[in-house]
Amino acid sequence: MNAVLVNGELTDAVSARDRGFQYGDGLFETLAVQHGMPFLLDKHLARLSAGAERLGFQISPALLRQEAEQLCRNVERGVLKIIVTRGISMRGYRGDPAATPTRVLSLSDWLSYPTGYTKEGVDVRLCRTRLAAQPALAGLKHLNRLEQVLARAEWGDEYAEGLMQDESGNIVEGTMTNVFLVCDGTLVTPALDRCGVEGVMRSEVLARAARLGIACRVETVTPEYLELAQEIFLTNCLIGLWPVRRVERRSYAIGDITHKIQQAIRDAYVAG
Amino acid sequence: MNAVLVNGELTDAVSARDRGFQYGDGLFETLAVQHGMPFLLDKHLARLSAGAERLGFQISPALLRQEAEQLCRNVERGVLKIIVTRGISMRGYRGDPAATPTRVLSLSDWLSYPTGYTKEGVDVRLCRTRLAAQPALAGLKHLNRLEQVLARAEWGDEYAEGLMQDESGNIVEGTMTNVFLVCDGTLVTPALDRCGVEGVMRSEVLARAARLGIACRVETVTPEYLELAQEIFLTNCLIGLWPVRRVERRSYAIGDITHKIQQAIRDAYVAG
Repeated sequence: MNAVLVNGELTDAVSARDRGFQYGDGLFETLAVQHGMPFLLDKHLARLSAGAERLGFQISPALLRQEAEQLCRNVERGVLKIIVTRGISMRGYRGDPAATPTRVLSLSDWLSYPTGYTKEGVDVRLCRTRLAAQPALAGLKHLNRLEQVLARAEWGDEYAEGLMQDESGNIVEGTMTNVFLVCDGTLVTPALDRCGVEGVMRSEVLARAARLGIACRVETVTPEYLELAQEIFLTNCLIGLWPVRRVERRSYAIGDITHKIQQAIRDAYVAG
Repeated sequence: MNAVLVNGELTDAVSARDRGFQYGDGLFETLAVQHGMPFLLDKHLARLSAGAERLGFQISPALLRQEAEQLCRNVERGVLKIIVTRGISMRGYRGDPAATPTRVLSLSDWLSYPTGYTKEGVDVRLCRTRLAAQPALAGLKHLNRLEQVLARAEWGDEYAEGLMQDESGNIVEGTMTNVFLVCDGTLVTPALDRCGVEGVMRSEVLARAARLGIACRVETVTPEYLELAQEIFLTNCLIGLWPVRRVERRSYAIGDITHKIQQAIRDAYVAG
């Protein structure tokens, strides 16, 4: 475990001149690995390609797929992180259109979150650090992650996750998760056109909820939603779904819709 | 030239697990080197220390000073870039308080900008990419530089620099420079409490202008200032001062105050 492939070679060394290191000029994906297979690999590679296109460079999904499968072949359970950057260029912000993007695939051990998180739910804080509105980068899982680093530094082990708000106080996401709220039978998740990361698992949840006949809305989630919601849950591709038991001092039920979505995701994991 | 010191060793390899590469979790400085000396080194190291403190980690200015002087010893003319990151930690945004910050010092060739830029001034564009408001990071020269990368990708060689606005249209800075405007004899530069980088040369200019008896204001610079200003100039520690001849279709004089500040900076370079 903890193997790293940099541009196809078994090393964890990247160039200090790489634009990923110099400017955070790249993107990443985090995947669950089980029985030798990176879970939802197609969807992660599609998001990576779309993100690179928005940033103005091109990646090779076929090559990344091959390296991901090679690296995960004998892994029973683990985490695969894929980073792609714009590669190496001369000094200065201007990119070199001829540069070859850098590929970094790294394996690490499976997570050690308490098993109760999935069944009994988690306690969540409201972070002081706000998310800045940047439509040009909104939705992307890019390498500029200082806001998340600052937010995560606000607590130690007393919460499982922190919810982040935009400058107006609207709820956007967790530091490493997307958030869903259940309001009177409708599933609501924040619109991510000004900030936030469009998680692969978020898309999965929206698709599966629609198939289950659960009404969904993607919209601005004002702070008042925390009072209106009966259920809240968090998702990402590693944790699956964590029901939220408390946000600060307010309590939530682990209700019917949370259970249904959790079951649907679990079925997908087994099927996938 | 193009030598790189990573944690004191002559190599350009950094770990892919470094938080600088993973999250842009660090800071940088860019210094002019002349006759073996990095210019304004004290001030750059002070800014680096203050920035690291704001991000919640500590660096050793003494060690960086020693490495900078060692690397620059025989360099007649060049550029020194210093990067410090929070170092290596486990997967996830949470930092490891026991981690050792990473130091990367790299030398590159002196700049090849046209010499006319300094005397005859430059043409500047207004970038479409806006700067997001993030008070927690404002002022810092941190490694999350995707906004500058996107802005710089908007043009090729037809402009020397691009001016960036915040979401309300206020002028904040250039992609790699700070901006000053002269309005009826007063020097005005944008306040950087919501976004932007507090350049070392910006502080130098403000200090020298005060010494020269030129009135200075640091304030919100609305787009109308582009119509009110008689002179505009750009600064950073590599270019010194570039007068602005045009912003898009509007022309500016290279006037008295621009000349005085340029002379004051030039004297400092020679003295420093």
